Amino acid sequence: MKKSTVKRQIMWGDLDSLGIVFYPRYYEWIDANGHIFFESLNLNLGSLVKERGLIFGLVETGCRYHMPGRYNEWIEIVTYLDDLSDKTILLRHDISRFSDKTLMVEGFEKRICLDVSDPLKFKAIEIPKDLHVILSKARSHP
Amino acid sequence: MKKSTVKRQIMWGDLDSLGIVFYPRYYEWIDANGHIFFESLNLNLGSLVKERGLIFGLVETGCRYHMPGRYNEWIEIVTYLDDLSDKTILLRHDISRFSDKTLMVEGFEKRICLDVSDPLKFKAIEIPKDLHVILSKARSHP
Amino acid sequence: MKKSTVKRQIMWGDLDSLGIVFYPRYYEWIDANGHIFFESLNLNLGSLVKERGLIFGLVETGCRYHMPGRYNEWIEIVTYLDDLSDKTILLRHDISRFSDKTLMVEGFEKRICLDVSDPLKFKAIEIPKDLHVILSKARSHP
Amino acid sequence: MKKSTVKRQIMWGDLDSLGIVFYPRYYEWIDANGHIFFESLNLNLGSLVKERGLIFGLVETGCRYHMPGRYNEWIEIVTYLDDLSDKTILLRHDISRFSDKTLMVEGFEKRICLDVSDPLKFKAIEIPKDLHVILSKARSHP
Repeated sequence: MKKSTVKRQIMWGDLDSLGIVFYPRYYEWIDANGHIFFESLNLNLGSLVKERGLIFGLVETGCRYHMPGRYNEWIEIVTYLDDLSDKTILLRHDISRFSDKTLMVEGFEKRICLDVSDPLKFKAIEIPKDLHVILSKARSHP
Repeated sequence: MKKSTVKRQIMWGDLDSLGIVFYPRYYEWIDANGHIFFESLNLNLGSLVKERGLIFGLVETGCRYHMPGRYNEWIEIVTYLDDLSDKTILLRHDISRFSDKTLMVEGFEKRICLDVSDPLKFKAIEIPKDLHVILSKARSHP
Repeated sequence: MKKSTVKRQIMWGDLDSLGIVFYPRYYEWIDANGHIFFESLNLNLGSLVKERGLIFGLVETGCRYHMPGRYNEWIEIVTYLDDLSDKTILLRHDISRFSDKTLMVEGFEKRICLDVSDPLKFKAIEIPKDLHVILSKARSHP
Repeated sequence: MKKSTVKRQIMWGDLDSLGIVFYPRYYEWIDANGHIFFESLNLNLGSLVKERGLIFGLVETGCRYHMPGRYNEWIEIVTYLDDLSDKTILLRHDISRFSDKTLMVEGFEKRICLDVSDPLKFKAIEIPKDLHVILSKARSHP
């Protein structure tokens, strides 16, 4: 299974008033990592929109929180494709403290292939074959 | 069941490059609404931290997306307590387009009562009785 | 002078680790208020882009901080057009604590009229006459 | 003059509806870089608060925008101390496109030394001598 890993540091602006990460930040990081994961498959999501009128729109997202993130800590976000159907993909994002690999947050994004050529009316479609092949390989990648 | 409703307008800065709401924003709004819900029960979460060393920390959050939010639309977020155990609460947040009440996003937050008097070592505890009574009423409120 | 006023509440997610507003939030609110100000002149910035390929792009922004904003406080943001030239506008945004009108932050945005019909190459242009008339009135509005 | 440089990539979630960076993001990055700059002087701002009750609070911030940032571009943020008085510091942050070093944004933060040992009443004080020496060196650093 292909995995895409990003290391980042928790900054002051990520914290809430208790000195721990304000949770919508995790979703920002997860979303960014999804893009990086696609990039690692040579799929640029920005180009997919512009050239083919396609996005992987959201069906559902979620996070489970195991340990709060704190100021200045380095974290590691590992993203991989855990499931793939005709129309949908399931990305998982494991966030852990870099120093000791303790799991902090388990996140996921379920996304569906959408035709957005009409920007006011998105339509669910099957993942085009060429993309499905690439994604399928990414999932089974040893 | 006690419900707390907030109306807000989708602003330019909430949008992504496709002109629809960037999804971590929904979580920011949901989190804010949770605080407003507690406020409606005369429970100020800021005071709970300062005076009693208590927070309702995160166990899990999630959202299901039914329709994208767009520029300038007014939305309504309805928050209520859907479940209550000895240590945890489950808040649900239904986000809909104000004009026609079409459901846009269904969100939830599962939170657990934490003793944070030691800021570096949070500890799960039972919800204190006085709070449990208030929450229990909010749940069964006709 | 036409003024556009918005009242809002400082939420948990707006705070930093010291319990005061994380300053990029002020810029988010200021930007939103600029849109609301235009709306109050019957100018929808979203429509200006779509229908006329025009935006008021940024030249410069700034804020001076007089008093920190804190949890749950209601604030008031007053926006008005302080200067207008052939190509540029200067919006000022005064943020104060609602309860006693103490000034918290003075912000400004200098914006320039841009032709964005080529999304990859923005070009500064003179503010079209019809818009200039509306803006000029908003500035001198008694 | 000591300079602290961070490279980062513009992500989907940083963009507005025109596909360019939503400007409050620049302030988030600038704020983060300020912390990294202090870190490079072996001054941890988190520890300064906890151990000495000191922060460098905001007096004023500002940005001038020369070129919009776009999806997936790598940028470079260079931070340095441009001015130092008894109580205040002036940090400058130059943001440029990494590929060709074209300047995108010039930002600054003017900060003042505050005693925050009473969290509800911040008080401007002179920068303690040991810190002043370190900052002074950082400014004149060859």
